[in-house]
Amino acid sequence: MHPPTPFLRVDRERLDANIDRVAAWADGHGLALRPHAKTHKTPEIARLQLAAGAVGLTVATVGEAEVFVEHGAEDVFVAYPLWVDDDRARRLRALAERATVAIGVDSVEAAERAGRLLAEAPVAALVEVDSGHHRSGAPAPRAADVARAALDAGLAVRGVFSFPGHSYAPEGRAAAGRDEARALGDAAELLRAEDMDPVVSGGSTPSLDASDPSVLTESRPGVYVFGDAQQWELGSCSPDDIALTCHATVVSRRPGRFVLDAGSKALGADRAAWASGFGRLLDDPDARVVQLSEHHAVVESPSPAPALGATVRVVPNHVCNAVNLADELWVDDAGALVRWAVAARGRNA
Amino acid sequence: MHPPTPFLRVDRERLDANIDRVAAWADGHGLALRPHAKTHKTPEIARLQLAAGAVGLTVATVGEAEVFVEHGAEDVFVAYPLWVDDDRARRLRALAERATVAIGVDSVEAAERAGRLLAEAPVAALVEVDSGHHRSGAPAPRAADVARAALDAGLAVRGVFSFPGHSYAPEGRAAAGRDEARALGDAAELLRAEDMDPVVSGGSTPSLDASDPSVLTESRPGVYVFGDAQQWELGSCSPDDIALTCHATVVSRRPGRFVLDAGSKALGADRAAWASGFGRLLDDPDARVVQLSEHHAVVESPSPAPALGATVRVVPNHVCNAVNLADELWVDDAGALVRWAVAARGRNA
Repeated sequence: MHPPTPFLRVDRERLDANIDRVAAWADGHGLALRPHAKTHKTPEIARLQLAAGAVGLTVATVGEAEVFVEHGAEDVFVAYPLWVDDDRARRLRALAERATVAIGVDSVEAAERAGRLLAEAPVAALVEVDSGHHRSGAPAPRAADVARAALDAGLAVRGVFSFPGHSYAPEGRAAAGRDEARALGDAAELLRAEDMDPVVSGGSTPSLDASDPSVLTESRPGVYVFGDAQQWELGSCSPDDIALTCHATVVSRRPGRFVLDAGSKALGADRAAWASGFGRLLDDPDARVVQLSEHHAVVESPSPAPALGATVRVVPNHVCNAVNLADELWVDDAGALVRWAVAARGRNA
Repeated sequence: MHPPTPFLRVDRERLDANIDRVAAWADGHGLALRPHAKTHKTPEIARLQLAAGAVGLTVATVGEAEVFVEHGAEDVFVAYPLWVDDDRARRLRALAERATVAIGVDSVEAAERAGRLLAEAPVAALVEVDSGHHRSGAPAPRAADVARAALDAGLAVRGVFSFPGHSYAPEGRAAAGRDEARALGDAAELLRAEDMDPVVSGGSTPSLDASDPSVLTESRPGVYVFGDAQQWELGSCSPDDIALTCHATVVSRRPGRFVLDAGSKALGADRAAWASGFGRLLDDPDARVVQLSEHHAVVESPSPAPALGATVRVVPNHVCNAVNLADELWVDDAGALVRWAVAARGRNA
């Protein structure tokens, strides 16, 4: 008895192994682990990460922070350059009464504004530094200015953080780790010169092995709990590590290809320029999703096509977006299928 | 007073104009209009479409059909090559007690199976025909075989349908309309030769103007209610027709670009090979979302960047996937912001 396809299934044994492996890695390198909960959005998984030694959770939005604090998290970091408005200030104040709360800032203006609207609330700031992904984040040489603005506006400054997102490229992982160490190292040095003792927080799943523990004090990987086709293709996980698949039914066949009932509304539409398709099959490494619509995945494979009505396990390209489409995960725990709610699904704000 | 960004806002006046325009178009061409509700997943919008003359709704899944019938729809067509299993058979039977229900089949095997599992239930079948999109659908010359298998298995056969999805290409719209007319015309002729009187159902928003009303009897566009950046770039809507935008806040700036708090978890990650970016801004036609993460849209524009904290209106590339990420639409009805629930969000099965 399982739910109708498409649905997301989690292999509990692999999930536990992934959580334990990265916890041991952080421990072995003397790094605090603060996993990014945007990947799973699931309180049960956050609890497993915390039980394995994580110091707290990373989240992307105030809404995610609310869900995890509601479910017992005691320490959340919104690793995002928030533009604090009255509504978010009110919600952050309420959170800070129940948990240790920190937010990201990446400009003097955002720091001043956050300080003004959060006056006296025990919300700490971390300065986001651009380490080469060129998304948000201040240039490293500006980190002390932003930190000083936050301090002057009445916020505690916890440290600096970066997301080395350019690790999401073939052969990009080692360079991203070096870039991260350089940018965060420079920024931290500037804060130390002003008598601060900063947390230095970095990390993405692909760059994990390239992290520099002589610079970082904290790591924030997210995707490692499940793995996905992107990590598989980047070489940062093996197919045997992949803990989440989308179970789908073969609904149509023609010579050379077949069609599954899992489309972009179940898998997400992510396809990096370097990805080999819109998703892969866990049990057929040579297969590729070559065409994706909202409810159709067209698969090509050199292997014989499965029969009409057969169920196959699809590995989404980017698991964070696949999970955010589902209201629930079906967790295979030694044969029993247990439902976990994706409680923070859709909490974009 | 509005919800925190990012949120989806619908311009009621434009929504009504889009619904009325396509209703008048169908009426003027003697076509039945059966709009695809997967675009909006919202009972209020379905009611507006039906009030404007739609003969029923198109949906993609049994789950969507359940939601719309629950909210009063009396006629639903699941335009998908369903592989009927016991669960779906039970649910389709229950639906058929409350509404007129049809499903798609594209193979003899699927038709036989559907007939067997739905025995005696008043569920009609339409044969899906591939008109050039090469996703699902039987080749036109096989349509009569599939129809006969459905009849022999005890299903009523309503007709043939196609989705000319290859209309989603620059300069592809007219050719897709011609391909659709040819494939559906051939398939319908084969059914008529067996004494059937088939509904001939086609249509996508980009190919609407290229539809051949001498062949079709029914049209099933979806995206036209809102429009999106894909339709804008294909030329099948103008920016003045776009009724749904994602309101987002400028959270970070650097020379030449700025960052919005709407990422792939609000906009969807769709980017066709021909798209000029990951999304556009309604009020700055030269701007493009050049980089998209889960909670960041990096925008480049030749115009001066908006201030930190400013709100901008983002046009998602593919509105169906953006809507499926949101639990609610905020509808601006003459200045008042009304909440409509995206009741069929996530109903992939």
